[in-house]
Amino acid sequence: MTESAPSGGPTIACIAGGVGAARMLRGLVRVSDRVTAIANVGDDVELHGLHISPDLDTITYTVAEAIDPERGWGLADETWQAMDSLGRYGGVTWFSLGDKDLGTHLFRTGRLRSGTPLSTVTREIARAWELPMELLPVTDDPLRTHLVIDDPDQDEPVEIDFQEYFVKHQHSVPVHSVRFEGAIDARPAPGVIDTINGADVVVIAPSNPLVSIDPVLAVPGVRAAIEARRHSGVAISPIIAGAALKGPADRLLRELGHEASVVGIARLYAPLVATLVIDEADRDREAEVEAEGVRCVVAPTIMKSAHDAASLAQVVLDCVGEPSEPARPAERAGET
Amino acid sequence: MTESAPSGGPTIACIAGGVGAARMLRGLVRVSDRVTAIANVGDDVELHGLHISPDLDTITYTVAEAIDPERGWGLADETWQAMDSLGRYGGVTWFSLGDKDLGTHLFRTGRLRSGTPLSTVTREIARAWELPMELLPVTDDPLRTHLVIDDPDQDEPVEIDFQEYFVKHQHSVPVHSVRFEGAIDARPAPGVIDTINGADVVVIAPSNPLVSIDPVLAVPGVRAAIEARRHSGVAISPIIAGAALKGPADRLLRELGHEASVVGIARLYAPLVATLVIDEADRDREAEVEAEGVRCVVAPTIMKSAHDAASLAQVVLDCVGEPSEPARPAERAGET
Repeated sequence: MTESAPSGGPTIACIAGGVGAARMLRGLVRVSDRVTAIANVGDDVELHGLHISPDLDTITYTVAEAIDPERGWGLADETWQAMDSLGRYGGVTWFSLGDKDLGTHLFRTGRLRSGTPLSTVTREIARAWELPMELLPVTDDPLRTHLVIDDPDQDEPVEIDFQEYFVKHQHSVPVHSVRFEGAIDARPAPGVIDTINGADVVVIAPSNPLVSIDPVLAVPGVRAAIEARRHSGVAISPIIAGAALKGPADRLLRELGHEASVVGIARLYAPLVATLVIDEADRDREAEVEAEGVRCVVAPTIMKSAHDAASLAQVVLDCVGEPSEPARPAERAGET
Repeated sequence: MTESAPSGGPTIACIAGGVGAARMLRGLVRVSDRVTAIANVGDDVELHGLHISPDLDTITYTVAEAIDPERGWGLADETWQAMDSLGRYGGVTWFSLGDKDLGTHLFRTGRLRSGTPLSTVTREIARAWELPMELLPVTDDPLRTHLVIDDPDQDEPVEIDFQEYFVKHQHSVPVHSVRFEGAIDARPAPGVIDTINGADVVVIAPSNPLVSIDPVLAVPGVRAAIEARRHSGVAISPIIAGAALKGPADRLLRELGHEASVVGIARLYAPLVATLVIDEADRDREAEVEAEGVRCVVAPTIMKSAHDAASLAQVVLDCVGEPSEPARPAERAGET
């Protein structure tokens, strides 16, 4: 099971947010050519009339090896003429849009305006980048993550959209609650449920559980489909030694009443997956994780390089079809 | 009357299309600091979700001395990263949007989406460029120039919007008719009628009469206001020796049953202005022009430089308040 994937490889459905998921997918496509990402659109935002899908683009650019490696978002060798020009007018520039990146938003917005569903446009964009995987937004319907925060300018809480929280406020304000506007009426995009139903492995990527994975699960039918495939489900903890590698997952977990640890993650994901992969830094919490009702696999989970990502992807594949005792396939993977 | 304008100068309302008007305005602001352009928005187009106002931008960039001098549209020292990127996706690239120029469209679109009227956004953009004049779209309401052409792919005529005709088809297809979609319900933008009523001089710029000036006149109230100020009205012929300097004005005039000459222009504009300025190349048609009921002034009308534009602007000012005999102030202007 630790060899390179045979031609084709297992069918993988990966529930995905942004950066962490993109890195996981960069690895998964190296162990299978039957990967489909089902991605969060709760972070999508309309700015300057353009429809921006940050998670879809981060996945596309990362898997295409075109992402800016320093920033972790946007395209490498980017220029910023349009933003400079927008700044001249006193326009909204807290959400940076590179000139090349703008081409993606122009294309997506133009196609959406002409009535094309987001899932179709996303497929067209993925094809243009020759991605060795399928990329599906979880829904073609509007779904937006809203957060209730303390308004710095007012005494009472205020509800803002995700990018305002994440980019404008640099996720440095306390969050009282999260709400997925539109989720109740959203339908899974064509292919989403079938992909989960038909997958050999359902992977929950190391993304923020509360604002990247939860909005995907909030689309009616998606959570139930994943639960039905629990035996084939593997999650990778986005929390390492109590902290998020990037972004506010640890802080959000605490603020919203969860434990910011691999045990907290196990508690959240136990209904969805049979296995949780945790980082070696959390090895001492393995028993606590398993006490939450999931098998625990310990492995290096920090994906700096494509090689790191591919190794972790192999660990994930090894989790499925193994005997249910805690066999630590991660360590076996390490032997190859 | 041929000296430099006194501080302030006369109040000038200039009915404006794109390139020709922009050059005229570049001159008018050199002879008066009380210039207001009332500009065509029939060429406006929604592309990729962005609201693009080509005539407003051509005026702004030209008067700000920021226009690309070779192309005559867009900004100097422009880059094209966004368009290259859009091309990767097979997106619509026949309408070129430079990266810097995109900043203008992003700002305008964002402000319009937030409910700000086009006239307000236009003022904000003009202020950012420190334009020494006011720039008003003729209306804040949707008004779009449509043209009926022979569809190259079909046997029967098809109606297309202006930019499709002008840019995509390079205005090289026969036009059967022109229609100003939305004109009947459009209201003049705040300030438009007052500007015309209060102007010492109402200038009709050397723009295409049928697709640049006519859509301005099609907004209810505008034509009547200009007619009421006919004695202060001066038009500059966009046709020189039977041809347009740029664009399809000559061809369109013929196709739509007019004469492509200064006489044809005189016939169109006689109800609107007391004076028509024609180029020296058309000197021999002066009597024919006056037979149409307008005073004819002969002057150099080709504006290659800011100096040319300022000289023509002075000619225009000299036209107003002159005795009604054909006094040829252009020649007097030439003596200064």
